Amino acid sequence: MSAKVLIAGSWREADATGTFQATNPNTNEKLPTEFPVSSWADCDAALDAAVEAAREMRKLPAAKIAEFLECYADKIEAAKDALSDAAFAETGLAKSPRLADVELPRTSNQLRTAAASCRSGDWAQATIDTATGIRSCFESLGPVCVFGPNNFPFAFGSVSGGDFAAAIAAGNPVIGKANSSHPETTRLFAELALAAAKETGVPTSIVQLIYRTGHADGERLVSDPRVGATGYTGSRGAGLKLKSAADAAGKPIYLELSSVNPVVILPGALAARGNEILDEFTTSALMGTGQFCTNPGLVLLLASDATESFITQVKERYAGGTPGTLLSPAVATSLKSSVETLCGFGAELLAGGGELEAGRCALANTVLRASASQFIDNPEGFQTEAFGNASLIVVADDLDQLCKVIASLEGNLTGCVYSDPAGSDDEAYDAVAFELTPKVGRVLNDKMPTGVAVSAAMNHGGPFPSTGHPGFTAVGIPASLIRFGKLTSFDNVRAARLPALLADKNPTGKTPRRIDGVWTTDDVA
Amino acid sequence: MSAKVLIAGSWREADATGTFQATNPNTNEKLPTEFPVSSWADCDAALDAAVEAAREMRKLPAAKIAEFLECYADKIEAAKDALSDAAFAETGLAKSPRLADVELPRTSNQLRTAAASCRSGDWAQATIDTATGIRSCFESLGPVCVFGPNNFPFAFGSVSGGDFAAAIAAGNPVIGKANSSHPETTRLFAELALAAAKETGVPTSIVQLIYRTGHADGERLVSDPRVGATGYTGSRGAGLKLKSAADAAGKPIYLELSSVNPVVILPGALAARGNEILDEFTTSALMGTGQFCTNPGLVLLLASDATESFITQVKERYAGGTPGTLLSPAVATSLKSSVETLCGFGAELLAGGGELEAGRCALANTVLRASASQFIDNPEGFQTEAFGNASLIVVADDLDQLCKVIASLEGNLTGCVYSDPAGSDDEAYDAVAFELTPKVGRVLNDKMPTGVAVSAAMNHGGPFPSTGHPGFTAVGIPASLIRFGKLTSFDNVRAARLPALLADKNPTGKTPRRIDGVWTTDDVA
Repeated sequence: MSAKVLIAGSWREADATGTFQATNPNTNEKLPTEFPVSSWADCDAALDAAVEAAREMRKLPAAKIAEFLECYADKIEAAKDALSDAAFAETGLAKSPRLADVELPRTSNQLRTAAASCRSGDWAQATIDTATGIRSCFESLGPVCVFGPNNFPFAFGSVSGGDFAAAIAAGNPVIGKANSSHPETTRLFAELALAAAKETGVPTSIVQLIYRTGHADGERLVSDPRVGATGYTGSRGAGLKLKSAADAAGKPIYLELSSVNPVVILPGALAARGNEILDEFTTSALMGTGQFCTNPGLVLLLASDATESFITQVKERYAGGTPGTLLSPAVATSLKSSVETLCGFGAELLAGGGELEAGRCALANTVLRASASQFIDNPEGFQTEAFGNASLIVVADDLDQLCKVIASLEGNLTGCVYSDPAGSDDEAYDAVAFELTPKVGRVLNDKMPTGVAVSAAMNHGGPFPSTGHPGFTAVGIPASLIRFGKLTSFDNVRAARLPALLADKNPTGKTPRRIDGVWTTDDVA
Repeated sequence: MSAKVLIAGSWREADATGTFQATNPNTNEKLPTEFPVSSWADCDAALDAAVEAAREMRKLPAAKIAEFLECYADKIEAAKDALSDAAFAETGLAKSPRLADVELPRTSNQLRTAAASCRSGDWAQATIDTATGIRSCFESLGPVCVFGPNNFPFAFGSVSGGDFAAAIAAGNPVIGKANSSHPETTRLFAELALAAAKETGVPTSIVQLIYRTGHADGERLVSDPRVGATGYTGSRGAGLKLKSAADAAGKPIYLELSSVNPVVILPGALAARGNEILDEFTTSALMGTGQFCTNPGLVLLLASDATESFITQVKERYAGGTPGTLLSPAVATSLKSSVETLCGFGAELLAGGGELEAGRCALANTVLRASASQFIDNPEGFQTEAFGNASLIVVADDLDQLCKVIASLEGNLTGCVYSDPAGSDDEAYDAVAFELTPKVGRVLNDKMPTGVAVSAAMNHGGPFPSTGHPGFTAVGIPASLIRFGKLTSFDNVRAARLPALLADKNPTGKTPRRIDGVWTTDDVA
């Protein structure tokens, strides 16, 4: 008997076409619980329940939805041990500090920050034009499907992470599709969410959970007329298929697909603090076994003796380190294959590569090297994402060639430039940044990209194919909520019929609204 | 010899695969000038020049781009007569007041409002988080292709209208694809824009113009790697093909496709001021021969004697009026065909229909009637857009059935509800508005939808298929600029390297920026 799905407020037997089990990547053994592969009937039932929940949620005050998020955050914190145990077994990520002490508080804090934005309505960009009698704001969009990734079972989980928090805070119910590598963890979250829904009196179908569907049913789900939008974080291949289906139906889909996150280290920086940069780079690149969306997978350097010395040291660090465990057999296989692909294009293997370790999901820490001219001749090939503990170093002959490499990049989430604190790289910086900035969602100076602060100014997004649209971020509240909102103008609508956010009186006394061109928390005069 | 295209700052012979001529819809005669159908070579050359212009524009201060827009607005006003003459000949729209006294000032004002937003940067949502050292704003995205519609040769023109103004003000060059029904008007605008570019010293490739391409080249254009985004307003069929191509390449495309703009007239409103509503409706529905994106094409009423009387009066008004001229032979043919389609589904022809007038593009003012149950049985069919002077009236037996009709609607730009000023319809209003609001971009009370004010609170957008995304508006500044921006975070970026908008000092002293959660025009403390 397989685990139950959560549909329409209750845990029930799936209408299943098969089952699957997650694997413990530290042992390569299958975990005992069988999870169902849902048929379309489950999706269909979840959609019907979500439509009903969406209608009910439109009638609720924002504060009620905020209460749900806060109550859920409390329950997550109380269940820290059980969640960390389940996620450790399914993902191999360390219980402490990673799961229990870093990712879990981030997750609950994210839910609370979303709750605060929901309560204040600061995400909705309320705009009031008294001269024309027109008022506008973002409103809920309808049921949101969330496909979470494998690498953050809490903070990007389908029913616990950033997309979930944003979709709910914008007033929409969520249909979660668990990542198949950590279904039990996701199931535990859904139990907590359901309990929080019951406790706070929001519609119980505010959260629903299925674990897996066939590909065709996934595409049908994101393009169904009942859906408002979809959030997806995962592989480029699966994401592009969902995108195609959603696009054809005119349904917004927000994707985070892949990114090699270039890091440029200019000569003055290398001279001034090469050892520190070596530490920062190797720590960032191997953190979480390199399985971060913002992992610095591509390092760009100018040819010099210092560069050769840096590369030698990276090689030694990589070769001397014990590799971390990868998230799943699929990740391990894919990493090995990507490394082989890069070697096939002519990259030189400096350390690592080879066969997967026996008995657990692991590949030796891997570092590859290529010349800028090789890269420029085959930019698509050399941008093959090697998701995991593998890095590619590219050495350019001069600044012009370095800029050509950057100009040949696809869209990325991040781009970093290290430069001399004393200013000797400033001219080179300008040239590099001019090429780099249009290619990335976040530009960093003198800092590795793996930290993604939950800040109103964060952009965890970037040009295609790092995401599906260059104007949206998946992290950073209130901006991330906008993705799941619909802009609505109210033209000559009678005062009593306006949404609370657009009434003359500021609904909270502190919600920012743009009244006649000026952002203010005042009432309409 | 055909007209020249504007590529890379000069008027030159097109690399043409053929030519076409516009038709004077008031005479059905072809206008003398031949315009080229550009091959891919023209698109390719325009894209290269646009990439170069985009790079140069990234180095310009915003004020410089604003100057260009303002200079262009001045030139448009000075050329009022020539522009109105050309547009009258190509579209049949009245020179006065419509073209010269309404649409032209709207166009120049729109350019000036966009210039003001460009100068202040208020569109860019500058966000500063001092605790984390992260700052973000929207920046230019790259070359924008604009495909303008047939119905507003000035205010939505490819190189003069709302998309043009928004794209330029966001810092991007525009490649205009003229609407084939008014190429000469568009050519005149491009001449003025080029002169303004030269006069103000911005890159001359800030504006380029081609008149027509083959379908495959159009699809290649919007999906080209060199393109930042596309704005398209026009037919659903052509728009969906461009959308499919752009989506597959991960290129944003903003579409305005079609909308029937439902108007619900509740019984208390009909009783209280039926005659006024009759005036408002017939004026709005037949204005511009019904060729407005927000034309009220679908009227929903509850069965009653008053409703029968209202319908009889509409019928009389329509039958008694001289139809206006339609924009082109294609519009006339399409309108006739749509009316026949609606009749084929069982709609009753109350007035109009029949054959097109000889000697000009015109069809008798047409009103059709269907029952709510007919509509509910075939919602897709009865939402066939009859672009022009034709309206469909649907009568429901009761409120429940009326709500079912609304629930069966596709996404629309607007939805209006007329209700009793004294409150007798309030309960019905709530039920109707609850169904209607999620379906439309703009909700109106007691007012027809044809006026689209350029207001910060305007949403000229709506759920698919009225547009391609429910979160964006094509009218309303600053919001319309966001479509052509890319969100960029600057994380730990050194102060001197930040964009002016994100520097500690407020760049204009009055640009709204969100600093540590509070919108302010202050400098960073």
